Amino acid sequence: MKPALLVATKGWDVESWARRIRPLLPDRPILCTDRAGIYHGADADLAEIHYILAWKPLQETLDRLPSLRVIFSLGAGVDHIFALTRLPDVPIVRIVDPDLTARMTEYVVWQVLHHQRLGPAYSAHQRERVWRDIDPPAAHQVSVGIMGLGVMGGSAARILVRLGFKVRSWTRSPKRMAGVESFHGAERFDAFLAGTDILVALLPLTPDTRGLIDLPLLRKLRRDGPLGGPILINAGRGGSHVEADIVAALRDGTLAGASLDVFQTEPLPADSPLWDLGNVVITPHVAAVSDPVALAGQIAGQIEAFERGEKLKNRVDPRRGY
Amino acid sequence: MKPALLVATKGWDVESWARRIRPLLPDRPILCTDRAGIYHGADADLAEIHYILAWKPLQETLDRLPSLRVIFSLGAGVDHIFALTRLPDVPIVRIVDPDLTARMTEYVVWQVLHHQRLGPAYSAHQRERVWRDIDPPAAHQVSVGIMGLGVMGGSAARILVRLGFKVRSWTRSPKRMAGVESFHGAERFDAFLAGTDILVALLPLTPDTRGLIDLPLLRKLRRDGPLGGPILINAGRGGSHVEADIVAALRDGTLAGASLDVFQTEPLPADSPLWDLGNVVITPHVAAVSDPVALAGQIAGQIEAFERGEKLKNRVDPRRGY
Repeated sequence: MKPALLVATKGWDVESWARRIRPLLPDRPILCTDRAGIYHGADADLAEIHYILAWKPLQETLDRLPSLRVIFSLGAGVDHIFALTRLPDVPIVRIVDPDLTARMTEYVVWQVLHHQRLGPAYSAHQRERVWRDIDPPAAHQVSVGIMGLGVMGGSAARILVRLGFKVRSWTRSPKRMAGVESFHGAERFDAFLAGTDILVALLPLTPDTRGLIDLPLLRKLRRDGPLGGPILINAGRGGSHVEADIVAALRDGTLAGASLDVFQTEPLPADSPLWDLGNVVITPHVAAVSDPVALAGQIAGQIEAFERGEKLKNRVDPRRGY
Repeated sequence: MKPALLVATKGWDVESWARRIRPLLPDRPILCTDRAGIYHGADADLAEIHYILAWKPLQETLDRLPSLRVIFSLGAGVDHIFALTRLPDVPIVRIVDPDLTARMTEYVVWQVLHHQRLGPAYSAHQRERVWRDIDPPAAHQVSVGIMGLGVMGGSAARILVRLGFKVRSWTRSPKRMAGVESFHGAERFDAFLAGTDILVALLPLTPDTRGLIDLPLLRKLRRDGPLGGPILINAGRGGSHVEADIVAALRDGTLAGASLDVFQTEPLPADSPLWDLGNVVITPHVAAVSDPVALAGQIAGQIEAFERGEKLKNRVDPRRGY
């Protein structure tokens, strides 16, 4: 038998992941936690585990894995792993998947177009059966600012450039892309915001990004753009924004609209004022959903390559946290 | 003085067009009808007119232009000209403008994504403050069928291909495009429809296309696709669809949704059942609005080239009607 795997997910359908990975790695034991992330079997079984496929793994589960070699995150984000107190000294690998990238690109392009093309206004008129001929601005009049120009942000940026939008990016370290005006470093952050009509946040959740999108930041966005005020799209992590500040910004006109796929508490509580604020699009953390079919093959391939002595791809830098 | 122009528009702001074109052709008289399309000046002035810039021109106005050389349509469609009983034997030129093409591309991509990403369902859940984790299909699972693969349809198709959609086209005569499965001719029409989940109509209005999109046609669309039924997007001309049939199709499940920018009667009457049918997006004929700034330069350039003896671009074929 080859080294064993543990699928450990909290709140997700563990078995749907295991079912996809088993046929790809038929000659190894594949164990599973329950839906709460708890493993009910013997410690002796866990002692054989080399790989964990994890979504919000429990500290107590990780503590029971003395032979662990690699942690595979089952999502693009790894904040659910760095949230733990004690991490074993093994590589942490995140998902970088063409399918996941395509899904996020769809979501970002959809929501940018929805606001640029005045979707919320037409929708309000439709409910009142009113034909009102308001003209949306052209894409080339609208500046989209992307925070987090990783694989997903870069893919969305390429399509937005093709559609004619003015696209700018802000990154920690310098990063260039054709057709995109790039800003980097803390000292250029305000200049980036000052020229942004639609702010797209695709940030990983790290100590640096936690609570980053607050009222002072939103007040720095471009006020005299063609959409009557700036728009926020957050499809990264809810922890990177302050929801009370977004509500205040929407109420006092600091923001003209928002599309939120992620929230500080998920599911978004039924009493959140966000649900029915005007010009807000709420989706239930579905911008880029990990697809077991598409991802199982990638993880199986990485395990086999790792055992042949090849380098793991998409390793997380624990100092940066992404 | 060089040959004169007449701006003749019905229901549009004539002066906003004239204001844009005057500085570009300063050495010629530029006359205007009123907002109803009627010219109130002397016949002697009209006898000097070589060019008409027309939107829904009146028969009586055209009949008063003995020296007419070219008719410029102020929109991408020319059905408003062919609707007249008597047309002078002069070239008819339509607008093919990068700006107009970009606007239509925005609209089509926006609405295709809106249905593929289950926008209407999330929007209904949001109104009920319900967090329901339904997963949209991936773009590559959805087939978009474009009827009318002209400049606009081709531009939208290119972006949809980049987003990962399966794209197919149906045209009268053979037309090929990278990444697009092409169908042409009457005998391939049913095969085209049978594999289409989202039907995008960008058809010119001609005797062939009038009333084309009716219940029998809608029943031929793919029924077992990933969206619970087919979707219709019409951003061409309202005359090419039968609204009563679309309403019936939405009510009996033949269609799972629709996005309509054009209607048989515009403005859409307040008592139309389309306004509040589920999964229907109504916009007030704004998919691609002619922008006087962008278009005036193109028309002025064509007039000057024509007078130098060059060939007119974007001439309409009167036999085809587009």
